[in-house]
Amino acid sequence: MNFRLKSIHSALKQRGLDGLLVSLPANISYLTESLSRDAYLLISLKENIYFTDSRYTEEVKVFLNNNAKLKECNGFVFKSIAEAALDLGLKNLGFEERYLPFAEFAKIKEFVKGKLSLIPTHSIIEDRRQVKDNQEIIKLRKATRITALALEYIKQFIIPGVKEVEVVAELERFIRYQGASASAFDIIVASGPNSSQPHHLSGERKLRNNEPVLIDLGVDYQGYKSDLTRVLFLGKISTLVRKVYSIVLKAQELAIKRIRPGAEMAEIDRVAREYIAAQGYAGHFTHNLGHGFGLEVHETPHISGQEASAIKPGMTFTVEPGIYLPGKFGIRIEDMVLITTKGCEVISGAVHK
Amino acid sequence: MNFRLKSIHSALKQRGLDGLLVSLPANISYLTESLSRDAYLLISLKENIYFTDSRYTEEVKVFLNNNAKLKECNGFVFKSIAEAALDLGLKNLGFEERYLPFAEFAKIKEFVKGKLSLIPTHSIIEDRRQVKDNQEIIKLRKATRITALALEYIKQFIIPGVKEVEVVAELERFIRYQGASASAFDIIVASGPNSSQPHHLSGERKLRNNEPVLIDLGVDYQGYKSDLTRVLFLGKISTLVRKVYSIVLKAQELAIKRIRPGAEMAEIDRVAREYIAAQGYAGHFTHNLGHGFGLEVHETPHISGQEASAIKPGMTFTVEPGIYLPGKFGIRIEDMVLITTKGCEVISGAVHK
Repeated sequence: MNFRLKSIHSALKQRGLDGLLVSLPANISYLTESLSRDAYLLISLKENIYFTDSRYTEEVKVFLNNNAKLKECNGFVFKSIAEAALDLGLKNLGFEERYLPFAEFAKIKEFVKGKLSLIPTHSIIEDRRQVKDNQEIIKLRKATRITALALEYIKQFIIPGVKEVEVVAELERFIRYQGASASAFDIIVASGPNSSQPHHLSGERKLRNNEPVLIDLGVDYQGYKSDLTRVLFLGKISTLVRKVYSIVLKAQELAIKRIRPGAEMAEIDRVAREYIAAQGYAGHFTHNLGHGFGLEVHETPHISGQEASAIKPGMTFTVEPGIYLPGKFGIRIEDMVLITTKGCEVISGAVHK
Repeated sequence: MNFRLKSIHSALKQRGLDGLLVSLPANISYLTESLSRDAYLLISLKENIYFTDSRYTEEVKVFLNNNAKLKECNGFVFKSIAEAALDLGLKNLGFEERYLPFAEFAKIKEFVKGKLSLIPTHSIIEDRRQVKDNQEIIKLRKATRITALALEYIKQFIIPGVKEVEVVAELERFIRYQGASASAFDIIVASGPNSSQPHHLSGERKLRNNEPVLIDLGVDYQGYKSDLTRVLFLGKISTLVRKVYSIVLKAQELAIKRIRPGAEMAEIDRVAREYIAAQGYAGHFTHNLGHGFGLEVHETPHISGQEASAIKPGMTFTVEPGIYLPGKFGIRIEDMVLITTKGCEVISGAVHK
């Protein structure tokens, strides 16, 4: 059994649980050091059991090793989980309250017939995923490198008349030739006024001269995700766009400088937010400063004004201040940082901004 | 308020509910006739309320019309939902048991403080989505046309030495130039022995001569999904591959011939499964015969041996028998049918097989 699973066994003991049902795919991937899909993982001090269906049996056999026993279920997976938990004699079975739909909880509860307690749990595995090990950092650096290459490559397509969705098309193609298995999320290409929507759906609008083009791109490299935003410019840049850009850039620089182990996350968010407000754009930075990335493109920690937790070495998160002027344009600059023992390394630092 | 929402109001009355909290994005998209993301929709006989956050306010205003009131929530969405339900005086609030995580259910339950009952519901909206209207069929036909063009286009890349993931890259690019906003799922390109895994993750393997290449592709056109599988061949086709291909093709033909309004879904699955078994491949057709498609690429109905429901005009589902020989190869042929008043139309029928 690998170190990660052993660590969960300790966590269970501390909480008075004798088992944990894991349903978030990224958590199962983390614990089995694999790319898990459509599965449930029952962890217990006696035995770990991996439940999936016949579509995946072949691939699962390759990665499961001695981390868990494979149980193939075609239909009735909740009955199988309940029966396995009872066979193992579990009394207090934790489950991931945010990732188990009510109906699945209800089915398992029905099948265990009151012979064990189902206990909601929160972030047991996600907390461990926040600090990355060397193998994970290697993959995240590779994902970042592919993203950086893609942003360089795409410049030739940033010309008037090209549709947003065509820019996405070329990015989706390029990243796979560089070793990515997929994009990490729906790539955002937001031209002109569309850039004022932080989560714009890239569409049929054609790029025009004298407009900003915001590109928010991430890739999946062996399960690990990147997330990077740059604003490119076509033709002349207006004084207002130039001014807003320099404010966002400065806000990002100030925030990055403040990052260090032990600092409170809210402090980092505040540095950027207060600078933007002081420049007259309070209320136009409408989202958190950043978020963790790894097996999921959005994962804990949240770099928000409400987050009192301390930054730790080995964490990876984005720093992405933005200013959005509805109907006009938006500017967001997003980089990816790795926390070191003394501060942080901007692993996307090679990408021009 | 549109017809779809009115129909849900009737459904609620029949069930003794005075409200329904909708959390599945495809269901919200269906009811608001839009592309909804990161939202909750509270339907009640008095008023419908759409909850989302500031990232989406701009786009939501465009499509919401008089179907629902917009409530922007930045954080505390479950508190807002609970308060709105209490303000409306709801007593029996249904929720979608398969799409509400346990933690969200628990939060809403806490905030309503016993003043209303939360009632699990199942498939109220999905049942209505099974039968498509003309506007939906137009979009599904367009999605199918793009998929057919992509399968024709990709043939030039099916040559020895090209990686599976590079074939995916070219498909991801092409479909967006044809009007698709995205692929409908992770495109499967499975070469040689990889084709024996029904849900193969396309990877770095290079196509080789004298092998089958299975391509399972779907696109998203204005929210509507297609799903189509073909097996292409490189070089010589072995006698065994040829034989298995003809069995799968015949199984599909027999199943499609049997499709008509009123027929039991299990019967259609059985026709294909029994033919495959009679040819000596019992146990090698390891999944259902098909599934509905529309706003989701996999939706009800399930065309399986356990499904006793009757087929209705306006339904759209896939017919995709397969034979998988582990370690050797797999053959799946998947088409998309639209149920007519007398039988069915194979809307992907123009794609060579």
